[in-house]
Amino acid sequence: MRNEYEKQLENLNVELIRMGALCEKVIAGTTKALFSGDAKYTSKSHAVEEEIDKSEHNIEHICMSLLLKQQPVASDFRFVSAALKLISDLERIGDQCADIADMIRFTTSYDLKDFKDLEEMSGAAKDMLSNAVEAYVKKDKDLAITVIQADDKVDALFDSVKKRLIKEIGKKAEDGEFYIDIIMIAKYYERIGDHATNVAEWVYYSITGEHI
Amino acid sequence: MRNEYEKQLENLNVELIRMGALCEKVIAGTTKALFSGDAKYTSKSHAVEEEIDKSEHNIEHICMSLLLKQQPVASDFRFVSAALKLISDLERIGDQCADIADMIRFTTSYDLKDFKDLEEMSGAAKDMLSNAVEAYVKKDKDLAITVIQADDKVDALFDSVKKRLIKEIGKKAEDGEFYIDIIMIAKYYERIGDHATNVAEWVYYSITGEHI
Repeated sequence: MRNEYEKQLENLNVELIRMGALCEKVIAGTTKALFSGDAKYTSKSHAVEEEIDKSEHNIEHICMSLLLKQQPVASDFRFVSAALKLISDLERIGDQCADIADMIRFTTSYDLKDFKDLEEMSGAAKDMLSNAVEAYVKKDKDLAITVIQADDKVDALFDSVKKRLIKEIGKKAEDGEFYIDIIMIAKYYERIGDHATNVAEWVYYSITGEHI
Repeated sequence: MRNEYEKQLENLNVELIRMGALCEKVIAGTTKALFSGDAKYTSKSHAVEEEIDKSEHNIEHICMSLLLKQQPVASDFRFVSAALKLISDLERIGDQCADIADMIRFTTSYDLKDFKDLEEMSGAAKDMLSNAVEAYVKKDKDLAITVIQADDKVDALFDSVKKRLIKEIGKKAEDGEFYIDIIMIAKYYERIGDHATNVAEWVYYSITGEHI
């Protein structure tokens, strides 16, 4: 029975790493679609987002089975319950990317050469998620803390993009809709940062047993 | 065995109606928080959103159990698989409301007396969801079609709010951040309309066996 239990825990670990990798993939692909101005990449975002949803359901199923049938010991219980929580945030990251992809798809192609701030912001959000996944894999609580702290940077970048584009709208109201789209896309990256922070907080909890 | 099966199907129906009612509640409460300018209502939005998440997991569990153990007949299979899909959209409606609540909470109180268009839009999105739930309860495919058609109205209202506020930013750039917040809130209501449309499409499928 314990053997089956160990196997299920290991399976949970593998599936979580896989789901995290899918989230990294969807952010990278969506960001590529955004900055390449090539809408064909957006269909991939939706395909990966669906894989993420399936992965979430699969992991939920593993967690439920562990909790109901195996009655895990305290540290494993923490690991399983943290997994159940953090997959909701990973799933939301998939949603945010699908939303960005929708915005790109239904709009004339963007030329984003002059949006280095947005590029920096999307990169920072992606790094947060990558580090949160790595913190999980390596059970590295310091890296989890680094992720949580990095959220301030993403928030500041969002604020700066927003303020800059509001000024642009003031100057060129005829391009207002384009700038609004970009602000909304930036908002989605800001939310991705929030969800990566939540993931890191659950990783911290699963390692230490304490809420940060 | 069939008796247990009927009981599980009835239980699924009851839980879906309950989850739909929670979504109506979270939209109504969040909209009240928005237009009353009283941030205390926003904590309720988060509480209801958590109930929605729990309800989703509960329904997933019922559906899985039905699919795995009971091998439902074709029309029931459609009903169960449609349920599995539409709860994702209901859950996203909860998320959108929580996002709106976050925006209200972290911003100085809005005075939205002059935003009749946003009020109309939020009302239209709420009606879409209420009708989608009613179409489900009454197995009314015509009402499901009405919901799907209503999405154009919500999209048009969003477009109109957005265009009006872009002009306002052009005139009063110093209020730009406030107007951007309102556009983002309007965008969330537009997404609620999209999710209500998806729900209606699944309801139509579960009744007719055809995708609209």
